[in-house]
Amino acid sequence: MEAVIWKRPCVSALRSCGPFATCGSRGTFGFRNGGRALHRTFILRVINSTGSGAVVARPSSARKYKRSEGVDRKLAALRQLFHKPGLQMDAYIIPSQDPHQSEFIAECFMRRAFISGFTGSAGTAVVTKDKASLWTDGRYFLQAENQLGPDWTLMRAGTPGVPTVSEWLTDVLSPGSKVGIDPFLFSSDAAEELKHTLSTKDHKLIYVYDGNLVDEIWKEDRPKPPAAPVRVHDIKYAGLDVSSKISSLRQNLVEAGATSIVISMLDEIAWLLNLRGNDVAHSPVAYAYLIVELDSTTLFIDPSKITPEVIVHLRNSNVTVKPYESLLLEVERLANCGAKLWLDTICTNVAIVDAFHSACNKYFENLPKRSKQKSIKERNKLLNAKSIDSEMEGPLAIHKASPVAIAKAIKNGAELDGMRQAHLRDAVALAEFWTWLETKVVQDKTTFTEVEVADKLLEFRSKQAGFLDTSFDTISGSGANGAIIHYRAEPDTCDIVDDKKLYLLDSGGQYVDGTTDVTRTVHLGEPSSREKECFTRVLQGHIALDQAIFPENTPGFVLDVLARSSLWKIGLDYRHGTGHGVGASLNVHEGPQGISYRYENMTGLQGGMIVSNEPGYYEDRSFGIRIENLVIVRDMETPNRFGGNSYLGFEKLTFVPIQSKLLDLSLMSPAEIEWLNNYHSEVWEKVSPLIQGDVHEWLWKNTRPVPVNSTA
Amino acid sequence: MEAVIWKRPCVSALRSCGPFATCGSRGTFGFRNGGRALHRTFILRVINSTGSGAVVARPSSARKYKRSEGVDRKLAALRQLFHKPGLQMDAYIIPSQDPHQSEFIAECFMRRAFISGFTGSAGTAVVTKDKASLWTDGRYFLQAENQLGPDWTLMRAGTPGVPTVSEWLTDVLSPGSKVGIDPFLFSSDAAEELKHTLSTKDHKLIYVYDGNLVDEIWKEDRPKPPAAPVRVHDIKYAGLDVSSKISSLRQNLVEAGATSIVISMLDEIAWLLNLRGNDVAHSPVAYAYLIVELDSTTLFIDPSKITPEVIVHLRNSNVTVKPYESLLLEVERLANCGAKLWLDTICTNVAIVDAFHSACNKYFENLPKRSKQKSIKERNKLLNAKSIDSEMEGPLAIHKASPVAIAKAIKNGAELDGMRQAHLRDAVALAEFWTWLETKVVQDKTTFTEVEVADKLLEFRSKQAGFLDTSFDTISGSGANGAIIHYRAEPDTCDIVDDKKLYLLDSGGQYVDGTTDVTRTVHLGEPSSREKECFTRVLQGHIALDQAIFPENTPGFVLDVLARSSLWKIGLDYRHGTGHGVGASLNVHEGPQGISYRYENMTGLQGGMIVSNEPGYYEDRSFGIRIENLVIVRDMETPNRFGGNSYLGFEKLTFVPIQSKLLDLSLMSPAEIEWLNNYHSEVWEKVSPLIQGDVHEWLWKNTRPVPVNSTA
Repeated sequence: MEAVIWKRPCVSALRSCGPFATCGSRGTFGFRNGGRALHRTFILRVINSTGSGAVVARPSSARKYKRSEGVDRKLAALRQLFHKPGLQMDAYIIPSQDPHQSEFIAECFMRRAFISGFTGSAGTAVVTKDKASLWTDGRYFLQAENQLGPDWTLMRAGTPGVPTVSEWLTDVLSPGSKVGIDPFLFSSDAAEELKHTLSTKDHKLIYVYDGNLVDEIWKEDRPKPPAAPVRVHDIKYAGLDVSSKISSLRQNLVEAGATSIVISMLDEIAWLLNLRGNDVAHSPVAYAYLIVELDSTTLFIDPSKITPEVIVHLRNSNVTVKPYESLLLEVERLANCGAKLWLDTICTNVAIVDAFHSACNKYFENLPKRSKQKSIKERNKLLNAKSIDSEMEGPLAIHKASPVAIAKAIKNGAELDGMRQAHLRDAVALAEFWTWLETKVVQDKTTFTEVEVADKLLEFRSKQAGFLDTSFDTISGSGANGAIIHYRAEPDTCDIVDDKKLYLLDSGGQYVDGTTDVTRTVHLGEPSSREKECFTRVLQGHIALDQAIFPENTPGFVLDVLARSSLWKIGLDYRHGTGHGVGASLNVHEGPQGISYRYENMTGLQGGMIVSNEPGYYEDRSFGIRIENLVIVRDMETPNRFGGNSYLGFEKLTFVPIQSKLLDLSLMSPAEIEWLNNYHSEVWEKVSPLIQGDVHEWLWKNTRPVPVNSTA
Repeated sequence: MEAVIWKRPCVSALRSCGPFATCGSRGTFGFRNGGRALHRTFILRVINSTGSGAVVARPSSARKYKRSEGVDRKLAALRQLFHKPGLQMDAYIIPSQDPHQSEFIAECFMRRAFISGFTGSAGTAVVTKDKASLWTDGRYFLQAENQLGPDWTLMRAGTPGVPTVSEWLTDVLSPGSKVGIDPFLFSSDAAEELKHTLSTKDHKLIYVYDGNLVDEIWKEDRPKPPAAPVRVHDIKYAGLDVSSKISSLRQNLVEAGATSIVISMLDEIAWLLNLRGNDVAHSPVAYAYLIVELDSTTLFIDPSKITPEVIVHLRNSNVTVKPYESLLLEVERLANCGAKLWLDTICTNVAIVDAFHSACNKYFENLPKRSKQKSIKERNKLLNAKSIDSEMEGPLAIHKASPVAIAKAIKNGAELDGMRQAHLRDAVALAEFWTWLETKVVQDKTTFTEVEVADKLLEFRSKQAGFLDTSFDTISGSGANGAIIHYRAEPDTCDIVDDKKLYLLDSGGQYVDGTTDVTRTVHLGEPSSREKECFTRVLQGHIALDQAIFPENTPGFVLDVLARSSLWKIGLDYRHGTGHGVGASLNVHEGPQGISYRYENMTGLQGGMIVSNEPGYYEDRSFGIRIENLVIVRDMETPNRFGGNSYLGFEKLTFVPIQSKLLDLSLMSPAEIEWLNNYHSEVWEKVSPLIQGDVHEWLWKNTRPVPVNSTA
């Protein structure tokens, strides 16, 4: 999947999609999904639980969204709620988020789409007493124009002269206005920044705890929160039991002087508890919160999702279950007990952070007067300090990045093995698929729509053992559509795949043992020399990155140039990162590592991490090229270890032929051709034993070595 | 010269040499020379003005420094001064700086060497009532041990457990102590940070304005401040007249809302006024300050340095001359006149910044009471603001990086042409030199000391037209000495250059029209296969960087990996940056651009900048390899210009053969061999017409193409 780099703070994310960018050092809204949710779908949840726990993905041709009607009445109803007793608001912001800053969200959280009618994956709606504006980025201008009703103004984010949400709000509201938000939908950092910006014109930010206002209009039509059963992620894939993982986490807590932590990222909870869910599309996670204390672990989740198997699993790991809704009460209890609570304010919603801070303040207010002042002062000093005395009297908030992200990013042997196995089955599905497409288009002279092709691919993947879902919405782009980096083919409007144009296919699967993400670009007829030159240079970038060897802990951005150099030589480039982290049978986008020109992500690459390698080139209104493999970061046994460092390199996970027809061999060095031939030989060795017949033949043809050119 | 990256704040610099590193985001002391002064010499100023303005550099064999004696008495005398009326200090810090944060300093500023006896280029002496400690880094541990008297403690900076200067001070002094510094020797930012650290234990930092305490002990033995005449830098080399440069600078002032600026970096003054000086070794600059106002320009300099020619030159550019010592009075006058003064607090000493701030405070104190408070508040808000209303009543300090640094870094056509010409003459000197060395060592079986070889090189350079000085102390390292990155051969202890070992020679010249800096590594006998592999990989890095093409404004650090990749492949690396900026007949190290693994320098590369390309590899106690050319950043006419960007690349300035004998051709790609053959063909074309006889023959032999290896 095209490399949208997962980044904890919103900076780089906003840089990539730009819809909400007032931000200096931090995004105004800190929408974590600014980067991650570029591919968020508005597709209704289509995975159905069938009988024995097997699930079937519905093809995307069946996915359609009916345009909402009666937007005006919705706006009127929402504005009525501004005057609810105790509120008296002047504006309400409806973001795209769920309470967990997830990339893919459940339908019941698609409030922005409901209120505005705009169903694109990224956007923010803002409603004042007399105005309604929707911000989205360049990918969605056309769609938003079509979907927004006459009462809405489209704010083309990133276009010169278009204000950001907070700029606009501070401008259109009279000084001293009140702006409401649902505190569950804003990360603490984002809310703080919004509050700060609004305060420059004496506006006040109000947290509306008492239910989301859009839900009050949506009423019984609002989809029910997902209640899909949770399943145990088998230890043979997880590799490490829950007790060991929690024990390491407690070690992190102790080292930081913390006594407890709230985890709100769904993939972190799934990873930590060796559980998988089925609440949203593409990501095998369940809506939940987790509190880990030094002597107890509590999972906050809808109890109806917990099967007997899971009950046993959790009991074995000493995990208690409480209702999802009881989290804030528990957070308040922690304050009352004097907990030193670790909070990752970049991804934890402000409802949680605010609840804890309020409870802390109450705690200190109830202290005898003389010790109160001193205590609060001392604590303020300690915020963000390196070491904290956990014996210190009274509660304390420790604002720090969650340690689970990096623990999850460094895969263990079982996780890596699961990823390898899943990739082999994925390779089989892809070999079958490409054989089918080539036969149909080249031999039978049939054409298909982009959506039909994507559906056929899903059909092949679905036949593979352990297949659960696509890992994101397939990007199936023929000709000029391939140049739209975040292209989403729609049945009614999409182009055909034929032998006249380049065809870019970026897709991935969720399997019980792993997650895949692969892009290939092919021409089923005769590519032009321009297309061949560009494809060759993209491949050269891919090869240069794949072959890189580098000292451990080198930040990913250092390697980014390797993937671009060959394009730069002729004045070409691409406007996305080169690699993102990938979860093991978890989210297809995960952090904190990445390979990108976003230089502020200093996360060092470490053995066991998984990243994508996906340079591309996009020629507007003409064609798009991307070549993507997933790779494991691993120790390379270099003959030297200068500075006592380990030197790392990449092990390929993806084994799908690269179309040699698209190469201009005269541009390639002997070493580059050798890389290609070795890769194809490896593809043949690993995949051919798993296939038969015409697929076997197709793979044989498509893995033959190309001649080494001795003059380049 | 080995790539010590010039960096405005001390962060990256400290990372490289580490001697004073308490620092978090900024170095404790902000010694700008942390990076730049790694090669600062303690050599007495040896350039003598002779008759008609010609200058002769004295060979380094004649340079010796006599170890100081009687350190104890000096310490006692210094401590006496702690009790001067009005002082009552508990400690005094003696840094290596001059008042301009220069890389090379005049002898009269070498106070740290005088007081401590330690003559290395980097170090800080701290004297308390009962202790005397000297901090220096790994390069100088041995030298410091030998030179420090028994009353001194050597603090091995960068070694585990060794406190930084401020850590040590806060520890050894009883709370509430007073630490004195000479405010002219600390940048404003460094002083502020020191003050902050000391305040954590209630210590006070005192600016001793009333003369440097070391000078009071040094007395009449203290060398006189340099008084070498200043000369006009010919417009044919400068390319742009002073009025145009000052007019651009005034444009910068107006845009920033400033009405005046103090410039204290000596190379910035030299560049802006098209003047060159002769006050320190290696850098053709003169001690001076400059104040540019919107309608006047004042040069603060010892008037005895101003020749009649310079008087006319300055008058033509409407530059007034005032005595060097009168700067602070003028700064106070500016405050009294309500100036909005631009101050670069990273490089401007705290004496100046403090003088202006104090005068501002006085200004506001003398205002009618009612407007005073409001005014000061308003002004505090404005500090560091983007746009300032220069019509606003009263003075204001605008803390901002000097705009002259970047203006100077982007060379104009005449400067580039001067650099090209100087490099050709330098290439002639080097061809003569290498012919001489090879003949003597290989044919005549003579050996020389490292110092003798360096002196011989100076002899050849001195014969070239327009030669003025070496641009830094020659690094002449045979065998294991080549592995000491900052090696300085000393006549008494240095090794011999023979046909048994690798020999690394890093040297440069100052010419009237340009500045050179070149490193070559050779073996005059039979290199080992290890040496060949390492040399080949260093060259591959050099080639990869040289061939890079990249979008304009790419930060230099992005390219750094290109120079390291080939070494990383076998687990090797080097512990210095890859490229530093170079002045045009000015300082051999200049910023703000650089190519380094110090990722915080976001300065984008732009056409007209000059940088070095100098990867290396150093095997402790065995050998050192470095291959360095200077290159011009220039527009490349790429067939595409994606994103409307210019794409930049490098034009080589240095034309000196690279020893083919040291290559393992089997490791090199055809493209790399082609690069080498093209380079040598260019060297031959450009340099052969300028030489005769055996030098001509040597150049012919050393620029022959090597065979392309078709299997790599």
